[in-house]
Amino acid sequence: MGKFVYSFNEGSKEMRTLLGGKGANLAEMTKIGLPVPFGFTVTTEACNRYYNEDCQIAEDVVEQIFEKLFELENVTDKIFGDVSNPLLVSVRSGSVFSMPGMMDTILNLGLNDETTAALAEQTENESFAYDSYRRFIQMFGNVVLEIPKSKFEDILNKKKKDKKYKSDLELETKELKEIIASYKKMIKKEIGKDFTQEPKEQLMEAIMAVFRSWNNERAVLYRQLNGISSGLGTAVNVQAMVFGNRGNDSGTGVAFTRSPITGETGIFGEFLTNAQGEDVVSGIRTPQPISEMAELFPDVYKEFLRISKLLEEHFTDMQNIEFTVEKNKLFLLQSRNAKRTAEAAVKIAVDMEAEDLIDKKTAVTMLEPGQISQLLHPRFEAEDLKNTVKLTKGLPASPGAVTGRICFTAQAAEKAAEKGEKVILTRTETSPEDLAGMVAAEGILTARGGITSHAAVVARSMGRCCIVGCSEMKVDEIRKTVTIGNIVLTEEDALSLDGTTGIVYKGVVNTVTPELSGNFETIMKWADEIRDLKIRANADNSQEAKIALHFGAEGIGLCRTEQMFLKENRIYIIRRMLLTDNEDKIREALLQLLPFQKKEFKAIYEVMQDRPVTIRLLDLSLHEFLPKTREELLRLSEQMSVSYERLSERIKELHELNPTLGYRGCRLAVIYPDIAAMQAEAIILAAIELKREKNMEVSPEIMIPMIASANELAFIKKIVVETIDRCFKKENITLNYSIGTMIEVPRAALTADEIAKEAEFFSFGTNDLTQMVFGLSRSDSSKIIREYQEKRILENDPFETIDKNGVGKLVHMAVDLGKSVRPNMKMGICGEQSSDPQTVEFCHRAGLNYISCPPYRISLARLAAAQAVVKEMKENQENKL
Amino acid sequence: MGKFVYSFNEGSKEMRTLLGGKGANLAEMTKIGLPVPFGFTVTTEACNRYYNEDCQIAEDVVEQIFEKLFELENVTDKIFGDVSNPLLVSVRSGSVFSMPGMMDTILNLGLNDETTAALAEQTENESFAYDSYRRFIQMFGNVVLEIPKSKFEDILNKKKKDKKYKSDLELETKELKEIIASYKKMIKKEIGKDFTQEPKEQLMEAIMAVFRSWNNERAVLYRQLNGISSGLGTAVNVQAMVFGNRGNDSGTGVAFTRSPITGETGIFGEFLTNAQGEDVVSGIRTPQPISEMAELFPDVYKEFLRISKLLEEHFTDMQNIEFTVEKNKLFLLQSRNAKRTAEAAVKIAVDMEAEDLIDKKTAVTMLEPGQISQLLHPRFEAEDLKNTVKLTKGLPASPGAVTGRICFTAQAAEKAAEKGEKVILTRTETSPEDLAGMVAAEGILTARGGITSHAAVVARSMGRCCIVGCSEMKVDEIRKTVTIGNIVLTEEDALSLDGTTGIVYKGVVNTVTPELSGNFETIMKWADEIRDLKIRANADNSQEAKIALHFGAEGIGLCRTEQMFLKENRIYIIRRMLLTDNEDKIREALLQLLPFQKKEFKAIYEVMQDRPVTIRLLDLSLHEFLPKTREELLRLSEQMSVSYERLSERIKELHELNPTLGYRGCRLAVIYPDIAAMQAEAIILAAIELKREKNMEVSPEIMIPMIASANELAFIKKIVVETIDRCFKKENITLNYSIGTMIEVPRAALTADEIAKEAEFFSFGTNDLTQMVFGLSRSDSSKIIREYQEKRILENDPFETIDKNGVGKLVHMAVDLGKSVRPNMKMGICGEQSSDPQTVEFCHRAGLNYISCPPYRISLARLAAAQAVVKEMKENQENKL
Repeated sequence: MGKFVYSFNEGSKEMRTLLGGKGANLAEMTKIGLPVPFGFTVTTEACNRYYNEDCQIAEDVVEQIFEKLFELENVTDKIFGDVSNPLLVSVRSGSVFSMPGMMDTILNLGLNDETTAALAEQTENESFAYDSYRRFIQMFGNVVLEIPKSKFEDILNKKKKDKKYKSDLELETKELKEIIASYKKMIKKEIGKDFTQEPKEQLMEAIMAVFRSWNNERAVLYRQLNGISSGLGTAVNVQAMVFGNRGNDSGTGVAFTRSPITGETGIFGEFLTNAQGEDVVSGIRTPQPISEMAELFPDVYKEFLRISKLLEEHFTDMQNIEFTVEKNKLFLLQSRNAKRTAEAAVKIAVDMEAEDLIDKKTAVTMLEPGQISQLLHPRFEAEDLKNTVKLTKGLPASPGAVTGRICFTAQAAEKAAEKGEKVILTRTETSPEDLAGMVAAEGILTARGGITSHAAVVARSMGRCCIVGCSEMKVDEIRKTVTIGNIVLTEEDALSLDGTTGIVYKGVVNTVTPELSGNFETIMKWADEIRDLKIRANADNSQEAKIALHFGAEGIGLCRTEQMFLKENRIYIIRRMLLTDNEDKIREALLQLLPFQKKEFKAIYEVMQDRPVTIRLLDLSLHEFLPKTREELLRLSEQMSVSYERLSERIKELHELNPTLGYRGCRLAVIYPDIAAMQAEAIILAAIELKREKNMEVSPEIMIPMIASANELAFIKKIVVETIDRCFKKENITLNYSIGTMIEVPRAALTADEIAKEAEFFSFGTNDLTQMVFGLSRSDSSKIIREYQEKRILENDPFETIDKNGVGKLVHMAVDLGKSVRPNMKMGICGEQSSDPQTVEFCHRAGLNYISCPPYRISLARLAAAQAVVKEMKENQENKL
Repeated sequence: MGKFVYSFNEGSKEMRTLLGGKGANLAEMTKIGLPVPFGFTVTTEACNRYYNEDCQIAEDVVEQIFEKLFELENVTDKIFGDVSNPLLVSVRSGSVFSMPGMMDTILNLGLNDETTAALAEQTENESFAYDSYRRFIQMFGNVVLEIPKSKFEDILNKKKKDKKYKSDLELETKELKEIIASYKKMIKKEIGKDFTQEPKEQLMEAIMAVFRSWNNERAVLYRQLNGISSGLGTAVNVQAMVFGNRGNDSGTGVAFTRSPITGETGIFGEFLTNAQGEDVVSGIRTPQPISEMAELFPDVYKEFLRISKLLEEHFTDMQNIEFTVEKNKLFLLQSRNAKRTAEAAVKIAVDMEAEDLIDKKTAVTMLEPGQISQLLHPRFEAEDLKNTVKLTKGLPASPGAVTGRICFTAQAAEKAAEKGEKVILTRTETSPEDLAGMVAAEGILTARGGITSHAAVVARSMGRCCIVGCSEMKVDEIRKTVTIGNIVLTEEDALSLDGTTGIVYKGVVNTVTPELSGNFETIMKWADEIRDLKIRANADNSQEAKIALHFGAEGIGLCRTEQMFLKENRIYIIRRMLLTDNEDKIREALLQLLPFQKKEFKAIYEVMQDRPVTIRLLDLSLHEFLPKTREELLRLSEQMSVSYERLSERIKELHELNPTLGYRGCRLAVIYPDIAAMQAEAIILAAIELKREKNMEVSPEIMIPMIASANELAFIKKIVVETIDRCFKKENITLNYSIGTMIEVPRAALTADEIAKEAEFFSFGTNDLTQMVFGLSRSDSSKIIREYQEKRILENDPFETIDKNGVGKLVHMAVDLGKSVRPNMKMGICGEQSSDPQTVEFCHRAGLNYISCPPYRISLARLAAAQAVVKEMKENQENKL
């Protein structure tokens, strides 16, 4: 039989998993002799047993709780439920990660009619005692009995109104007693029985309420959003009460050891005299700045400053401290690492390193990678947002804050942009035809699609703000209207998109562009010193390459060539190719594309200079090329001089039930080898010209997508090599190049040893790998994944964070198989997950050489890569101990 | 430097891979002292070098060829190209497996103007010499110079016509010389240079022509159809000529040591006096039955009978022998295991075992599993076929030979069948809505789809004859016409389908039903004694279960429940479920299906008695349930009293880009747990009722499809177990059951250890596993796979034969991971590949317990499973040596 309850003097800060963050820190503070009211913690394991044992607390756990309660009585010299010297306690939840959705606090537990009378007598303060009792009934009634807060407030407010009081403090004992009586009556009506007078029952009910709150809707949602395992469970802290509401020599407050907004040094926070904890937060009374304590409680304040400094040093991070003053004596109720803005995080990390509180390795772990995008993208002005109508919320597909007029077609967006107008391309969904419009628009908004839909992927790669899957929104591209509930918008209206939250606002909202501080550069420099993984960018053209370089990219890991086929009228060439059988015409058409592609490659090489550039040969699905609407088809029929009927017949023939598993990637090049040959020629000629013109040594990395077998790779490699040899011969020059492959089809991973015989590098395409390993289409999965997360079948969305057990196992296998053939083979990852911190950590541990991610995610990836090193180092140290 | 040329006295029958079948057997016959003209074999490795070295024969190989030619000159005491005593040779291809598409034979090589004159003088037979020269020029011109045969025949026929000759034999020397002159002239015109007079050049050209023929179109196609690796290469046999055309004391013939049609014992074959080999086959003269040799060549015939018996005993199989008699002396030119019909194969295997020539293990290897369907399905009468128009050819999806009137809709087919009429359901493609029509029809014919399309899979499972992917055929379901080229057919016309060849005939063709012989039963009994794998059936209802039992199924490995949802009007219930949100209505609707499903399960259990029955819970794609046409949608809107617009909006929302990777299998049950609960209840109640009513002990195996994680399986298992517990409690009875899962999603295989904690058995669903491992949709892949086979990227269609390197590796992994958790876990396979002999062998070696295949494939699987055991045993013996 295990130990499920720990006194505060039995734990330490290392025991977070078992005691929760709050419990572990209370134990730690107790250990180092700080004034913490004594108490005990019911562990997270007890919570898990509660769930595994039909939502009952087992006998042995109950016994341990009461043993510890007995110890608490001894330490405080009070007795729980005693009618002369009653022990009162607070009950608080405390999970490993702080979770806003959960039950927070019940204060003054142990009070009933008799103990309240005793407390009044003992403290000689009747109004304090009944105020405490009133508060307790209200909190217990709300969080344990689940009676809406408003029912209590109605009673309280009515009394205050009757008496024309402005503050709770004005209530007299008699009135408090009347309120208590009304509360009890209301509770009986609501739950069908009396408010319990039995303190032990109160305690057990409160503990179970904390356990229950672990799985309430908000908590579950929060865990999903933050990737917290539902198996962790929450601990419960039971602590002897101290009272900030015993008069003007008492009070309560919350403080930060530095500014959570800017990171400035010094104590920041708020304080209320004669109050209990929840008053500070609830806004009933306006709290005073904490600095005013210096006058009101000079000794206490001095002591508080000393302890604050000590706590920050001890926990080596900025602290968020809750405290109470009871009759001029300071008590600490909680201390934890404080939440902070991205700017604050950066400043604090750099300052603390300068203060010798932490080293550089720790400093880089003090920034949440997810916060970094806050630093890079413009944001809406907070003031302006207050006056703005929120229209709806979609999936935040690509960050940013943009405003523009609604445009329903790519053409309209292009035209407007040419005139310098800012527009939001607003569509049911986007297709490759919309590319030019997406480039022209400030932001993209779609009614359909997940965060890995076409719109989302393209937008992210371009750094365009994008919100997708706004399912409440209906876009009628014909009538040119957007309908959200009763609101109907037209091309006359403007929208504002917050790509970080997914919120769509009506009208224009002003934005502010954050400036990157020198501190940020400092942190990034440290991260670069620490990390092993190289960080490359997914960049498809020279503009993107420039942005990538600005953010510190060390190369391009994925240059997609699809846009080079789709841009402007080039899609027509491909369409013609797919819809005719005349091989000469196909070759001729492709040769028209050669100069465009060569030019684009040259521009990219010039930006990247001697850094590696991996160019992926065409990877489009057949269906992405085909005309979708009647209009497109009519236009094509005209252009090709082929009858509409014949063309639509042919398109019907080409229709695929599952395009993702169809005619795409290298399969197109197997059928049309001229595509691969033309691209290889463009890649090599661009490099040759730069060598001639600027004496630049470019060593292109040519990457072949969607490979499922070594034979397939060999087939295309042969075409590429032959083409390159022909170029070398014709130009009478050679240069270095390498040919590698995406590992994105499970079979490629399974046969990576065979494939490594042909490939000089691997790049893991974890988007497709995840689709195929799960048998789950990216385009259709968001609903399924949501359901699965709600039902606790899936923890993370595998398209956001790599699935370590399945996809990850395959990656490990492929790494091992590949290295068995080429021990020093270069391997990277370029899937959508690549910059997710958990995925970065996985890649670091799997021994990959680099990560490739969209330009705007590079800083994040640099940081995450450094954090992965630090985390591994710490684990290794711990394992040694 | 290796050895690339072997004399006949250097090889043996074990060296097939290196020498090809023909070369190895000629060497073997030489070794045992039979009268084989001497010669040598250029190896298959030389052929592979030829292909790897830019289609050139390397110097060292050329040297070895001429060394062996020199040896041949010594042995025969003749000189190649000599003008007094010339050596003449035949050049023949010989691959490991005999391949009808390849170049066969060039005779009389070494002849030119001078050596022909010498031959005439030496043999004192001028017409023989010029006849030989004429034949040589013709053969060489055709197969080496690739001049159409007709050009030679035109010249020959013209001469015969001029002279009013009926037979080649009537040609006189002068006329032969004129023909030779005309041949030469024509050749010069065709190839731009003279017919070569240089024997060594003739020889090298001929050898290269054999190598080339390895990759001609027909040979490639043949290999694809028969799963023969293109990497094997062909050998070339060069053999001293003997002449059957030296007069009436000479001749040539082909014989079988038993009847290749019926298997009857005794010599069968044909013989021509004064002729060379190709005359027997070409049909220019009508050959005599071989028995007539007894009179014409009594001594030679006696010797031939002796040798035939000896060859059969030596090669322990029925032989196909080519021989020549030159001046009353017998020479053997080839002996090989003879092709035979399925009936003959069965009889010969049983007879040879009785004759103590072979043991039972060898006997079961003498039947090709693919031939078995010939024995089981009706066939068209050969005579009647001769007068029938072949319309087109599609993919043979399900064997059989059926005739019926064209019906374009399931409804029409049902109505006609009710009246006792035989119909062919003819559609562009089929959907689940067509099921009743498919049941009613004799056969199914579709213009689209691969051999794993809906129509094909359903037809095979029902044992219905089916041809799919008839791409030349256009079906217009509205106008009710089928167009093939210029032929337009209507509902008035009849079609005949040969499901074994894929050929579609016009009109009615008579069929014959083969009777199964006692010999067949004997072979099957032996196979059952030998095999380790259990053979189960994929059977979805009691009728199929009965057929399966008839063919020897030992259980049901896959009872799909989809039909139970789709039959009649039941699809409406599911549609309503998917299109509403009212949970009560969903439950209510599902409960309507319960009695139907219970009844069907009961009927299946009753057929199978104590044999295991694995029932798979619903595995349909969302899209298969949804109405597809405007008509269907209108009907549904009426039935549901929901507006057409709202319904079509909802269907648009449910649309999936990749249904195969979407909302299907257990994912439906996760969202609608009531589906799983209803099915579990029906499965268990059916078993309980049979226990009560007939004291039968049924132990259902409940199988959950499309599982990707242990959590997912646990989620559904919980629903199933809770439902079953409730049934047990309510009925106050218990029985044994087990819960297992399909391993068909790669992630399930990768995490099979975790899944094995929840699953009591695994069934590998290699259809989906192949789709996802390759990233290749079954529905869309046939074109891609065909291209890949043509380009030698893929050897087999992975949907027909398991892909050992990729999918197979995953299966091995899952077996190992599963057994690490449950050492005695039952594992089987139920994918479409399951009865393919190579797949059966794989499953045997992977340690699976059973195979589950369609009823009509069970005999084949029983045989293949036995052959796998014998093959492994032989390999183990060989490895020991």
